[in-house]
Amino acid sequence: MLNVGLLGAGRIGAVHARAITAHRGSTLAAISDVVADNAARLAETYGTDARTSDEIIADPAIDAVLIATSTDTHCDFIEAATAAGKAVLCEKPVDLSLSRARACQDAVAATGQPVMIGFNRRFDPSFGAFKSALKAGEIGKPELLSITSFDPAPPPVSYVKVSGGLFRDMMIHDFDMANFIMSDAPETVMAVGSAIVDPEIGAAGDVDTAAVTLTYADGRIAVIKNSRRAAYGYDQRIELLGSDGMLQAQNMLENLVVKSTAQGVTGAKPTYFFLERYMPAYEAEWSAFVEAVETGTPMPVSLHDGVQALVMAEAATRSVKDKKPVKLVDVA
Amino acid sequence: MLNVGLLGAGRIGAVHARAITAHRGSTLAAISDVVADNAARLAETYGTDARTSDEIIADPAIDAVLIATSTDTHCDFIEAATAAGKAVLCEKPVDLSLSRARACQDAVAATGQPVMIGFNRRFDPSFGAFKSALKAGEIGKPELLSITSFDPAPPPVSYVKVSGGLFRDMMIHDFDMANFIMSDAPETVMAVGSAIVDPEIGAAGDVDTAAVTLTYADGRIAVIKNSRRAAYGYDQRIELLGSDGMLQAQNMLENLVVKSTAQGVTGAKPTYFFLERYMPAYEAEWSAFVEAVETGTPMPVSLHDGVQALVMAEAATRSVKDKKPVKLVDVA
Amino acid sequence: MLNVGLLGAGRIGAVHARAITAHRGSTLAAISDVVADNAARLAETYGTDARTSDEIIADPAIDAVLIATSTDTHCDFIEAATAAGKAVLCEKPVDLSLSRARACQDAVAATGQPVMIGFNRRFDPSFGAFKSALKAGEIGKPELLSITSFDPAPPPVSYVKVSGGLFRDMMIHDFDMANFIMSDAPETVMAVGSAIVDPEIGAAGDVDTAAVTLTYADGRIAVIKNSRRAAYGYDQRIELLGSDGMLQAQNMLENLVVKSTAQGVTGAKPTYFFLERYMPAYEAEWSAFVEAVETGTPMPVSLHDGVQALVMAEAATRSVKDKKPVKLVDVA
Amino acid sequence: MLNVGLLGAGRIGAVHARAITAHRGSTLAAISDVVADNAARLAETYGTDARTSDEIIADPAIDAVLIATSTDTHCDFIEAATAAGKAVLCEKPVDLSLSRARACQDAVAATGQPVMIGFNRRFDPSFGAFKSALKAGEIGKPELLSITSFDPAPPPVSYVKVSGGLFRDMMIHDFDMANFIMSDAPETVMAVGSAIVDPEIGAAGDVDTAAVTLTYADGRIAVIKNSRRAAYGYDQRIELLGSDGMLQAQNMLENLVVKSTAQGVTGAKPTYFFLERYMPAYEAEWSAFVEAVETGTPMPVSLHDGVQALVMAEAATRSVKDKKPVKLVDVA
Repeated sequence: MLNVGLLGAGRIGAVHARAITAHRGSTLAAISDVVADNAARLAETYGTDARTSDEIIADPAIDAVLIATSTDTHCDFIEAATAAGKAVLCEKPVDLSLSRARACQDAVAATGQPVMIGFNRRFDPSFGAFKSALKAGEIGKPELLSITSFDPAPPPVSYVKVSGGLFRDMMIHDFDMANFIMSDAPETVMAVGSAIVDPEIGAAGDVDTAAVTLTYADGRIAVIKNSRRAAYGYDQRIELLGSDGMLQAQNMLENLVVKSTAQGVTGAKPTYFFLERYMPAYEAEWSAFVEAVETGTPMPVSLHDGVQALVMAEAATRSVKDKKPVKLVDVA
Repeated sequence: MLNVGLLGAGRIGAVHARAITAHRGSTLAAISDVVADNAARLAETYGTDARTSDEIIADPAIDAVLIATSTDTHCDFIEAATAAGKAVLCEKPVDLSLSRARACQDAVAATGQPVMIGFNRRFDPSFGAFKSALKAGEIGKPELLSITSFDPAPPPVSYVKVSGGLFRDMMIHDFDMANFIMSDAPETVMAVGSAIVDPEIGAAGDVDTAAVTLTYADGRIAVIKNSRRAAYGYDQRIELLGSDGMLQAQNMLENLVVKSTAQGVTGAKPTYFFLERYMPAYEAEWSAFVEAVETGTPMPVSLHDGVQALVMAEAATRSVKDKKPVKLVDVA
Repeated sequence: MLNVGLLGAGRIGAVHARAITAHRGSTLAAISDVVADNAARLAETYGTDARTSDEIIADPAIDAVLIATSTDTHCDFIEAATAAGKAVLCEKPVDLSLSRARACQDAVAATGQPVMIGFNRRFDPSFGAFKSALKAGEIGKPELLSITSFDPAPPPVSYVKVSGGLFRDMMIHDFDMANFIMSDAPETVMAVGSAIVDPEIGAAGDVDTAAVTLTYADGRIAVIKNSRRAAYGYDQRIELLGSDGMLQAQNMLENLVVKSTAQGVTGAKPTYFFLERYMPAYEAEWSAFVEAVETGTPMPVSLHDGVQALVMAEAATRSVKDKKPVKLVDVA
Repeated sequence: MLNVGLLGAGRIGAVHARAITAHRGSTLAAISDVVADNAARLAETYGTDARTSDEIIADPAIDAVLIATSTDTHCDFIEAATAAGKAVLCEKPVDLSLSRARACQDAVAATGQPVMIGFNRRFDPSFGAFKSALKAGEIGKPELLSITSFDPAPPPVSYVKVSGGLFRDMMIHDFDMANFIMSDAPETVMAVGSAIVDPEIGAAGDVDTAAVTLTYADGRIAVIKNSRRAAYGYDQRIELLGSDGMLQAQNMLENLVVKSTAQGVTGAKPTYFFLERYMPAYEAEWSAFVEAVETGTPMPVSLHDGVQALVMAEAATRSVKDKKPVKLVDVA
């Protein structure tokens, strides 16, 4: 039984609290939050204790820490928890600063503790079936990957300002998905973006619509499209052309009803947002973490994977600014 | 080159005129219609002659006659044309009276001339692919067939009154489709029907909504559903459960566009009616007829097939009236 | 907080144990089973007690009883539990004998206790959205209903022999679904069936493939198709033609992946069986029961609904035997 | 009645011969080909004359010329035919050389004769419905366009060598489609490409897989993906995210049959190649040309449109070579 401390009692912390509790091999031992009341409320719901993050990290009875706090605290908590001998599952991104993330990577390496980064989409059953079919050779050799990833509605501009920008905050999931599907990092990143959904996002120095092209050493190509707004819901599709065919992962719909009238044939929209879409993925992610800790096997998504996605986000940010392709090896 | 006389210049006659003209192996030699002006107009469009039906049948230069006149004239024209040594393609149904149709069958047999009945749906490319997959054993042994066949809108009551009723006029296509797919006639027919779309259809002694169950000697079952009204267009689906899986033939849509908005994901409706849906089938039907005439091979849909569907329509009509299953062998 | 005793620790009992435990308003107080070991095992999983059914029914601290035992014990347990002042949720069917079920109905009426029958499909989110769209008038007035309900594989013949037959065991769900969608009982039932999947099922006096037509006083028609075997999984579809359009509830698929190759475009199969397909429905069913008990409002599926479906199963059974339609009023 | 001379009796010439013949407002007066036998054969099929191109252009009885010859002859024939006072419909691309195409544009302008370029996809009914929905405001303001355009199989390397390269030969259709949908030309073109399907295509200096990003002055973005090989057939999809939703044009399938087995749910592949997919578009294109000539209205696809697509192809070619975005205004 893995005793788990949860740092962060916000929306995503609540998702993890549920997964930790539901898992037969883990117990939610304590919850902390920068707003103590939030921790208390979530702790009451799950019948556990609210404590400070320091207390949780210092508690020798706690085996693992799940970090769901604000991004700027991730590295500090990762370092403190691994130094205290705990296994860590930390939400993405590792940090907004690549150098800070790399320093954290070094510090963790020194402790030898396992750290997993929460790229939950890798654990989505459909993306898993997609990857399995690819590995089984069902479409031959991969050639051209497309990732479509649209949010239903843009976040408040106040959030955008501290988010690190669309590439580090939103597309970072898609960078990791490309790495997951392609089983390799790209050589170059070419990005374009604009603030066409909300001019205030542009005024805040960010983009809300972007297209990124990745090229690989062996000639493969990937295209990632992001938009902060899709009126019809959360659009999460992946499509890979291979030498023998194509794989597509389609959207999950709200229900199975189709209506045919004089106006056309209408089915349900995609599920609204990530909580509805990826709930099974969060549960499977937690299971994978527990299993890796219990068996001492490598983390299925490593801290290195988290840094790699950050390098790609950094490259995309520079590519938009400099209006040219950026090589990953040139991202210091 | 087959010289063809077309009897009947109405809506369906015009469809055939086009198919006859477009086919490289046939020439549209003459057109007749009970309203001479109609024949003249259609003849002008296709650069051919308008003549009387008697003239056409008497003309030794004409090899084949396509009968697209009103149902009550079908048998007379079939008999006259075959007696004159011509091959015949006649629209469905053979006649509204089963005994008249059987007498016609005898008369034709005496001439030895080939007669094909225009069950055009057998020649639809998708139903053809469906039948081929079945024959190739792709779903194993057939067990349970469903045919859904809805018109977009009910005909005028004046038409209903002379149509012979839904079973002889509309479902007769589905009876033939069942025979085509099942490669056998059923043992019994159980039918229910009501006039729920338009009470005036009920007042005229007919139904506009019906469900018919066919049972086969070997235990197979088929269900046919008809409605005179589907607000979304012409609904033409077939579904067959077999021991190893299921085949479905879906609707043809008006176009390939899908729109996703906050109201849902909306695609095009089915094509509006039989002309749009079955145009390729009419062309393929005509090709099959020409080929059978030219090669002297049996007609792909025989006069017997036309009578068989009529027997089933008769059985269904009785079943609704008597509220009990009717055996085909009991339909005199 | 509702204290609940669970009678029956089999496959379906385990489903309910999970739903009772997961619900915030209910506690799983005790589990019984005719095989004490089964009860003990399930009780351990959920951290509760294994007791006898008599003990559970006699315990005044238990507010409600969920009956998931074998069908022949349903009525006895319903009567005992309601006599003991408990609310009851009982699995379908109420009993195989209609007269026994009616006697039970009388006994329950005398106690005034609420009894709900476990027609879980009414609580499926997609069927719920279907019903809501219908009630909102989105397809106008309902006219022609089709229910397709195929199991993935036939049960052992040993089960078939004690099941009461396909109509009482399997199609009873579809009879209830017809009542749910049509908001009324039919006037007549016409059924055909055969043992075409497995001759041993026929030797045991049952059918494995069936088509049933229901007619309603106002002219509406419903068709239900059942098969004990669909090689591609659990096929659960509903389709309703109305005056302004059609509603369809489609199958839930195993995943969202589509593969396009030279062999065609292939998507996932339907989910395998009822546990996968209806898990959310079981949870929603339990919530609805708890809410009805807590608020004292009428049960969303009444004992009368359970008896009504049994009447239809009885009528279908007779219709197959007598080869004629059976009126519901004639089923004593 | 428009008297038409057809230059070029190859595969695409044959498509046009059929459309010209089938149209009620045009007559196929003569056919020429660099291989006289080809012209003779096609002329015989359509009951017309084979002549030389010089004879056709010199014949005052010929009103319009359709140019379906090899690309290197397009401009010469356009100039000769317009100088002879004829209306012209010329296949794409205008020329492989941008400067030659621009010189041709000047020459045509001097004659005042109407010239249309054969971007047939603009006339596809589904793309037309797509454009209409966009213009009707059904998805609000366009933001992010994706065009997927994969051929079923790569052409012979001998063809690749004279084709002008993927961007001028294949993606030129998609450049025009982007212009058609976006109703504007982009500011910059960023292209990547590789020869991953067939190394011999790379050895010939071309790519077979490419992704191109277009950026627009107002912040809109478009992504075009091309591959010379899709094992499942001709993949022709368009998708546009707008402020209020998304439009998609999906693939046309070979038939309407779906098979469900233990292996999954399999539908038909997309139609094999452009002849199957775009036959209605070729017919509609010809109708639009005839109508524009007859009414003296502007050509629906102008020579300028043809040059504009060529500019984009030129920019993409340079972008791949120079590994940087290319502004359209910098393409001399």
